[in-house]
Amino acid sequence: MQVDELPTPALLVERSALRANLDTMSAALPGERLRPHVKAHKCTSLARWQRDNGHPGFTCATIREAEALAAAGLGGDLLLANEVLDASRLGRLVAGGARVTVAVDSRETIAAAVTGGVREVLIDVDVGLPRCGCPPEKAGELADLARRSGLEVRGVMGYEGHLMLVQPAEDRARMTREAMALLTGAAARVGGDVISAGGTGTYRDNTWATEIQAGSYALMDTAYTALGHPFEQAVWLLGTVISMSPGDNGGHAVVDVGLKALGMDHGPPTIPGAQVWFCSDEHTTFAPGELGLRVGDRIRLAPAHVDPTVVLHEAIYLVDGDRVAERWPVDMRGW
Amino acid sequence: MQVDELPTPALLVERSALRANLDTMSAALPGERLRPHVKAHKCTSLARWQRDNGHPGFTCATIREAEALAAAGLGGDLLLANEVLDASRLGRLVAGGARVTVAVDSRETIAAAVTGGVREVLIDVDVGLPRCGCPPEKAGELADLARRSGLEVRGVMGYEGHLMLVQPAEDRARMTREAMALLTGAAARVGGDVISAGGTGTYRDNTWATEIQAGSYALMDTAYTALGHPFEQAVWLLGTVISMSPGDNGGHAVVDVGLKALGMDHGPPTIPGAQVWFCSDEHTTFAPGELGLRVGDRIRLAPAHVDPTVVLHEAIYLVDGDRVAERWPVDMRGW
Repeated sequence: MQVDELPTPALLVERSALRANLDTMSAALPGERLRPHVKAHKCTSLARWQRDNGHPGFTCATIREAEALAAAGLGGDLLLANEVLDASRLGRLVAGGARVTVAVDSRETIAAAVTGGVREVLIDVDVGLPRCGCPPEKAGELADLARRSGLEVRGVMGYEGHLMLVQPAEDRARMTREAMALLTGAAARVGGDVISAGGTGTYRDNTWATEIQAGSYALMDTAYTALGHPFEQAVWLLGTVISMSPGDNGGHAVVDVGLKALGMDHGPPTIPGAQVWFCSDEHTTFAPGELGLRVGDRIRLAPAHVDPTVVLHEAIYLVDGDRVAERWPVDMRGW
Repeated sequence: MQVDELPTPALLVERSALRANLDTMSAALPGERLRPHVKAHKCTSLARWQRDNGHPGFTCATIREAEALAAAGLGGDLLLANEVLDASRLGRLVAGGARVTVAVDSRETIAAAVTGGVREVLIDVDVGLPRCGCPPEKAGELADLARRSGLEVRGVMGYEGHLMLVQPAEDRARMTREAMALLTGAAARVGGDVISAGGTGTYRDNTWATEIQAGSYALMDTAYTALGHPFEQAVWLLGTVISMSPGDNGGHAVVDVGLKALGMDHGPPTIPGAQVWFCSDEHTTFAPGELGLRVGDRIRLAPAHVDPTVVLHEAIYLVDGDRVAERWPVDMRGW
């Protein structure tokens, strides 16, 4: 099938760019040094490529992601890097043979792990992002409580998510060092051999974590591209130009890719060579510049934030230039 | 089933609020005066309630919506209020007995309707929203072309989407009058008996359209609630408080409803009684104020924009207070 035969909007991934991104990251963080985060692509077919690149474990944000990975035979070492109050579905995965570790940051989440039948945990530590995680000085107490409750404490996690897009790079490196000082301090009190942290933004700076939870590097988006890391834009939205309006300065054009096909929390998408005006439900209005477009032409848009873009699509079309190589279901959506 | 047994995040609709919203709108715009837009709820079960309230026709934004409505036996008079370059799937609906009218604003979209087997069109007119639609003065020519091409031209449409949230109300009314002067002028040149326009924001002001394409009124969101129209917030996100952090001014709490469960183009959600700080993929961080929350408590969030929120969910849970009455699949997602 040719790319131009796909109904639009369609989520495309360039196979060569994906391949290059995976290989670049696997060279930098081989084997267990990388625990790929699947929240950025939600696709077990893509996760299998990551596993085949030498990474045995995965990071998940939702129970559904863990279930889908286990069902796909990728459940050898799953980390749910998030707190849950009902761990019963995770316990069923453990009973079924998957290895599941869950983050805990409170008495209640420790109790939920025990009740649900999850046997391994990481103590989630607040390293500066105002979200989940206990204060670093409380991590030892929580680890003791978890062990008294019968849980295996594998170590700590602490996500420096607030630092991923910090510029310039020197500031990001310094702030990552400061955040990881909190985490390694907590790790000394907690014990275990896992220090799980990091992401695509800090994968080179964060030399304290034993494993990096990067996800966006595989597909990329315009926010991460701005960092200048050695990863290519691999995911694109394919759209059809459905309307052209003459006007001052070349008028405007409309493509059938709107905010129901794009995560919008980082702003509108980018159309190379054109200027995007705004998105509505099923449309992006843009100034076509010198693109010489006509109604019916197909164009590609780069999303500003990959994670919430992918979840809006049933499938990824893996493409080699103009040819569709494979259709990969986005099979980890929902909760 | 009780609401508190649902896994979170979950999309809840209060049955009494939905019922009231539908009845209020049907009293204001009975029968064919309202052509409910399904893009705001994407749910054929809800569309059936609208049909049962006396509205025989529906407005769609995507081909998938039209297909799902037809499959649900609701295809008596479907308007695809959008341009398409491949109308073959719509033509199959027509061949299967559905009535389908499609918007056209160019030679190319007229040709697509003919080729695809759609026999009825509306001329889409630009009334000020920089998106699709031909200039008003070109509408007559396009209608002539469509008729020469063998199409039935039922009339015009022109969506004043840029005016939906204008405040104060007097400005919105005046600007709607000006926009509809363009549309009625075009209608005189086009012929036919349909003037399709309007939405929840302008449903009272727009007395020129023969049918109003309102959709958001059924479920509502915080952007539309701010207008003071007589519709209640009917849709909520149910979440579980998964983490609480002490700190200055009461610290912060985290609920497991994030930007993968919420359309973000109108900004973050609202938590009654609390102050939302920010959303990340699977979390909303907020100051809990005087809510007296504990880890494990369940709370409700109101979305800022209903349309892109609903598409992130597999199902709507219709609830009566604490009881789940029905599970409605969100069965019009995708394209």
